[in-house]
Amino acid sequence: MDNGGFCNNNYHSGSSDDELVDISDVTVNFSEDVPPLDLDYSAGGCKADWRPSNSPKLIDLLDDTVPGIGTYEDFNTIDWVREKSKDRDRHREITNKSKHSTVALLFSISDAFSGWLLMLLIGLMSGALAGGIDIAAHWMTDLKEGVCLNGFWFNHEHCCWASNETTFQERDKCPQWKTWAELMVGVSEGSVNVLNHFMYVSWALLFAFLAVILVRAFAPYACGSGIPEIKTILSGFIIRGYLGKWTLIIKTITLVLAVSSGLSLGKEGPLVHVACCCANILCHFFTKYRRNEAKRREVLSAASAVGVSVAFGAPIGGVLFSLEEVSYYFPLKTLWRSFFAALVAAFTLRSINPFGNSRLVLFYVEFHTPWHLLELIPFVLLGIFGGLWGAFFIHANIAWCRLRKNTRLGHYPVIEVLVVTLLTALLAFPIEYTRMSSSELISELFNDCGLLDSSKLCGYTSNSGSTSGSVNATAANGLGARLAGPGLYTAMWQLALALVFKMLITVATFGIKVTDLDVFLKAKQNIRAVLRIKPQNDKHFFFFLISTLGGVTRMTVSLVVIMFELTGGLEYIVPLMAATMTSKWVADALSRESIYEAHIRLNGYPFLEAKEEFRHKTLATDVMRPRQSDPPLSVLTQSGMSVEEVERLIADTTYSGFPVVISQQSQRLVGFVLRRDLVISLENARRHQEGVVSVSAVLFTECDPPASPSAPPAVKLHNILDLSPFTVTVHTPMEIVVDIFRKLGLRQCLVIQNGRLLGIITKKDILKHMAQMANRDPESILFN
Amino acid sequence: MDNGGFCNNNYHSGSSDDELVDISDVTVNFSEDVPPLDLDYSAGGCKADWRPSNSPKLIDLLDDTVPGIGTYEDFNTIDWVREKSKDRDRHREITNKSKHSTVALLFSISDAFSGWLLMLLIGLMSGALAGGIDIAAHWMTDLKEGVCLNGFWFNHEHCCWASNETTFQERDKCPQWKTWAELMVGVSEGSVNVLNHFMYVSWALLFAFLAVILVRAFAPYACGSGIPEIKTILSGFIIRGYLGKWTLIIKTITLVLAVSSGLSLGKEGPLVHVACCCANILCHFFTKYRRNEAKRREVLSAASAVGVSVAFGAPIGGVLFSLEEVSYYFPLKTLWRSFFAALVAAFTLRSINPFGNSRLVLFYVEFHTPWHLLELIPFVLLGIFGGLWGAFFIHANIAWCRLRKNTRLGHYPVIEVLVVTLLTALLAFPIEYTRMSSSELISELFNDCGLLDSSKLCGYTSNSGSTSGSVNATAANGLGARLAGPGLYTAMWQLALALVFKMLITVATFGIKVTDLDVFLKAKQNIRAVLRIKPQNDKHFFFFLISTLGGVTRMTVSLVVIMFELTGGLEYIVPLMAATMTSKWVADALSRESIYEAHIRLNGYPFLEAKEEFRHKTLATDVMRPRQSDPPLSVLTQSGMSVEEVERLIADTTYSGFPVVISQQSQRLVGFVLRRDLVISLENARRHQEGVVSVSAVLFTECDPPASPSAPPAVKLHNILDLSPFTVTVHTPMEIVVDIFRKLGLRQCLVIQNGRLLGIITKKDILKHMAQMANRDPESILFN
Repeated sequence: MDNGGFCNNNYHSGSSDDELVDISDVTVNFSEDVPPLDLDYSAGGCKADWRPSNSPKLIDLLDDTVPGIGTYEDFNTIDWVREKSKDRDRHREITNKSKHSTVALLFSISDAFSGWLLMLLIGLMSGALAGGIDIAAHWMTDLKEGVCLNGFWFNHEHCCWASNETTFQERDKCPQWKTWAELMVGVSEGSVNVLNHFMYVSWALLFAFLAVILVRAFAPYACGSGIPEIKTILSGFIIRGYLGKWTLIIKTITLVLAVSSGLSLGKEGPLVHVACCCANILCHFFTKYRRNEAKRREVLSAASAVGVSVAFGAPIGGVLFSLEEVSYYFPLKTLWRSFFAALVAAFTLRSINPFGNSRLVLFYVEFHTPWHLLELIPFVLLGIFGGLWGAFFIHANIAWCRLRKNTRLGHYPVIEVLVVTLLTALLAFPIEYTRMSSSELISELFNDCGLLDSSKLCGYTSNSGSTSGSVNATAANGLGARLAGPGLYTAMWQLALALVFKMLITVATFGIKVTDLDVFLKAKQNIRAVLRIKPQNDKHFFFFLISTLGGVTRMTVSLVVIMFELTGGLEYIVPLMAATMTSKWVADALSRESIYEAHIRLNGYPFLEAKEEFRHKTLATDVMRPRQSDPPLSVLTQSGMSVEEVERLIADTTYSGFPVVISQQSQRLVGFVLRRDLVISLENARRHQEGVVSVSAVLFTECDPPASPSAPPAVKLHNILDLSPFTVTVHTPMEIVVDIFRKLGLRQCLVIQNGRLLGIITKKDILKHMAQMANRDPESILFN
Repeated sequence: MDNGGFCNNNYHSGSSDDELVDISDVTVNFSEDVPPLDLDYSAGGCKADWRPSNSPKLIDLLDDTVPGIGTYEDFNTIDWVREKSKDRDRHREITNKSKHSTVALLFSISDAFSGWLLMLLIGLMSGALAGGIDIAAHWMTDLKEGVCLNGFWFNHEHCCWASNETTFQERDKCPQWKTWAELMVGVSEGSVNVLNHFMYVSWALLFAFLAVILVRAFAPYACGSGIPEIKTILSGFIIRGYLGKWTLIIKTITLVLAVSSGLSLGKEGPLVHVACCCANILCHFFTKYRRNEAKRREVLSAASAVGVSVAFGAPIGGVLFSLEEVSYYFPLKTLWRSFFAALVAAFTLRSINPFGNSRLVLFYVEFHTPWHLLELIPFVLLGIFGGLWGAFFIHANIAWCRLRKNTRLGHYPVIEVLVVTLLTALLAFPIEYTRMSSSELISELFNDCGLLDSSKLCGYTSNSGSTSGSVNATAANGLGARLAGPGLYTAMWQLALALVFKMLITVATFGIKVTDLDVFLKAKQNIRAVLRIKPQNDKHFFFFLISTLGGVTRMTVSLVVIMFELTGGLEYIVPLMAATMTSKWVADALSRESIYEAHIRLNGYPFLEAKEEFRHKTLATDVMRPRQSDPPLSVLTQSGMSVEEVERLIADTTYSGFPVVISQQSQRLVGFVLRRDLVISLENARRHQEGVVSVSAVLFTECDPPASPSAPPAVKLHNILDLSPFTVTVHTPMEIVVDIFRKLGLRQCLVIQNGRLLGIITKKDILKHMAQMANRDPESILFN
């Protein structure tokens, strides 16, 4: 009551500033006020509204009296500051309550630990899923070639493990395992190879068809690598359903199908998507994360670390990947949580042990020979070639995607997938090393050559040390000291062919409309493919492939750490660093964007790149809306507008928020209100508040202005008003504005000069301006 | 001229808003204006000043017409936004010029590459210095025990290498190497040990005395670990001379002396300081970095990565250390540069090869046995103990430092150092493993035990595999299968004693007033000390020490990576992660601060911690100055003040900056001017501008107000005015304000409500407020 009295008193008194300039006979009308610049700060309303005597909520969204307030629409950008404020308010409320009762205290403690618990669950779930995917893909890949008579659920390896008739010489041949030709025609050698080939292609087509149909029917978001979209989501964009349960289910199934179909794609990028889906779904069980978009993104950052951790078996590499490549906002707290989640996931995967070698790392390879200083030159050269190839790959892939997008080609995704699969399968079968699945290929290549080994790669002749040239070259290595036999040379050119083939087909595959196609595997598989063949050449192949991956993704530190964890090549840190750094420089010199950023731009997502600085000399005034020729900014006044007027303004415009000013004349900023909140509140008032009609006043002030008793009750919207909108001046250079948007994660910012509201800058305006400055089409930015 | 004309016209016309409210007979006096809220945005001056037609400079500091403008005073905080703006302006200027001439183009290219060149130089210089320090410290440590007759500059090892009379059994004994007792008395055995002990202690005292005298006489900043101060400097604080050439020279010399004197300190933390000094000195050769405090801090971030890279031989660990522990502002660009610099430094160190093993990593140790799942339990337990010990260590160390600071103890630093050295040397000599320098100790422990080895640690009895209990325990390891002889047990308890002794003495040593004392070595040395002794126990010792280090420094990811690079223990990533994470949790539960942060707080540096969120429910209005009871804010008006008035305001106040408003009555914000810039400009005007007297007007507007012809010429200060000061509203929650300060690196922020300036919040205000909220003494924040 005291408050109200003070408000009313204050309201009727002329302000001291007005007195100073001696305004006589001016009726201070609330709806058209002259800014009362009195010294007690009260500007157009009651004083008590900004110095909380009984600590009212700043943003009253927490109460959720009206459902929907404080949420976002699909394909919109979130406001990080608002979300984080919400979280802190929530935290404070819990802390305050916890002082009063034991139950609340327990709740407060469980709330504090819920973040770590969530990380634990994400790690467990992602690790388990990754293990399951590995096992299923292995089985289905073998299904393309034959079936186990002991039980169709055994894969080739398990089938023959159980058999007594397996010999050491031919350990992958046993009577229980029948190729399709053997099963149907009954003959195992000769011309039936055509039948095997046919069955191989058919299975591949079936898997690919199933995958593409599933994706199209149930979860269109399950297509693609997922990393560009996840990057965009992490930067604060809403794509509903992109990380939902249907996407998770379909992505998991189609990942298995697509890998089994033999397409040149890997499960690494998609595993990041799967891990993020897990995280998003698990978030729903924790109020703290369900309701808060910013907190949820912190969890998703950690989940992307988990994805890489289970894909490569490289937990630290995963954390760095999330930091360097994917995440937008990555505070130290998230670093620690990512670290923990990646650890749990790696541990879970190791417990499931899909590769049967009881190691975290799939294949532990070591380069033990110290390198010579002069070797740096070839390593750096390989880095240059890798960078060039990476830049070319991005360019070719984007051109292909643009072609698909702009021509009729894109209308037939199912056919496109089937054609690519057909080509891949037809061409892959004849060469032994492309026919194999990645895991088979790896086992083939990485098992140490025993004396009784049947693999062609072990076809070394055993007269060790007879020819001096060969011995010199490979003296350090016991295996290399044996001469290469003819079988090995066949294997070598087949592998080289496989490499070229994989590279070309990957360009066409990445970004195709099936599911989870990724550059990672290409490099990973090939690294492994060539790693152990010839002791002297493997290093150089390895470096070339690392450099290519560096050129494509522009990762540096994370790539080195991943490779480090994959291969244990501690000795080679310095050359590896040199190669990746060179590759990044070369690729950056050709084009600034990594494959992910190129795809983000292709899709027109509102992604404010944090890596590059804004270098142009423009001011906030050049970017803000309205332009000089446009009609003035649509604003609401803090009082004096009727429900009908507000509704008309909402209907006439499409802006996602409106500044609230004291009066149309003064344009003195009071706050900012979001369109969605406004619409919901007005609807709610019309429906639930008694006596609200079209002529009811809409008030954004905390205390009522005096109204005639006969007037209908006013709609009070003070609680949806953001009283601390971000402002810059017209003089603020755009580089600073861009910096503020990036670092604080703003959605919009108001432009004032000397306390007078002049315009507004949204994230989309900034992106359009940046596109314009870079001579690109500003209309390519599609979303808010 | 057009401009000026427009200004004057506009100036005399009444604004449209005034007309609306029908003000009659009001003389619009410039110095007491009513805010003219006309629709063409002009508020109190000329319109053209904010829409640049001929693109004037926004912040004209670049011109440096007046030397000193745009610089900072000692012990002050920098403004990151201003510094970055300056850099971007500079960059744009160079880019623009490069379009006109080839020379400018070449200059522009060299400017673009100067960052990478600087990184190269820092890497080379730090690597070379680190190599030199290693070699010198090794020699001087040996000098404490004896001297080489072939040449006093040989260390023990080199002396005996050259000798022909060295046998395998006693490879560290040769006639050329004489202990002091042998040299002086001529006897080598028996009671002369006392003489050796005396010489050992004397040398140690001499080295320590030299070190402390050098530090006190030439470079007081060379004392201590350096990391707390570097952390503060990186957060945007100025400590002149802290990274200067004298500090570098003295720190390098005293580092060698202090390590040689046998004090329980390491060269790791100090090497970070040395690398930062190198970086700071090298910055002086590049205009881009010499003139810009923000750019220089980016370089220093990279340099701290270099320091760790050369200290541990762990380049990736160094980058992560810089990211996780030291740096404040660490964009991806800095990540890549740190990566490059760390690589160069590691490469240089490897080329110098101070350890003679042609490896980057000092001691390459591998745990090859896979770990069992159950082993996680002891690892986590060790993590808990490590965390507890770490928290205790911090507490004890801070208590000791506080005691030293507050009592008479701190008045005698030289005596303190000598006492600690005396104690260390007296106690260390009798135990073989504490007497040795770290490098000797390591060679002793890490060399694989040959059959002819003289070391006690190799005293295994050779009846391998006779007793079954021992065989079970150590079956996996060939060395362990031999039974431990009695010599080994002696070695074991001596080492355990050494461990306890080192731990206690380190508490007293860290932060002592000599030079470069660090926690790192304590753990590092001991890790190495215990790593190879008993195959089964070394792991647990190792984990305990890692955990302690984690508890003391609160590092997680970087610690794991450093250990990973040091030991090659790829297999043990998961347990290592689990142990460090547990240790961090436990230590955090006891106290939130790492040793570095505790020391920062002890010293009262203005460091805004980025790790913890501000959780209190206060508003900007609760923190801003002036308080309600205080006199109003000291402001300048954009015109209407005389030189004398401004000078009086400067003399009467101590604020480091003043807001500029349109008029005292309206308090409508125009911009912000820094005290230092103002003082320099006024002095400059008085000295160089003709006709400036005390009654001359001071103008912050771009165009002149009409003045009587007889008036003295005005001092125009528009160019030092920051037209885009950061503002928040009174309603802005402090959590958001803190966030803005942290993320944008602000120095101050103005508080407005409805366009009216109400107050100012500085970084110091925020720190004081935070201290108050945490029930600490707000006066402990000493600097601006």
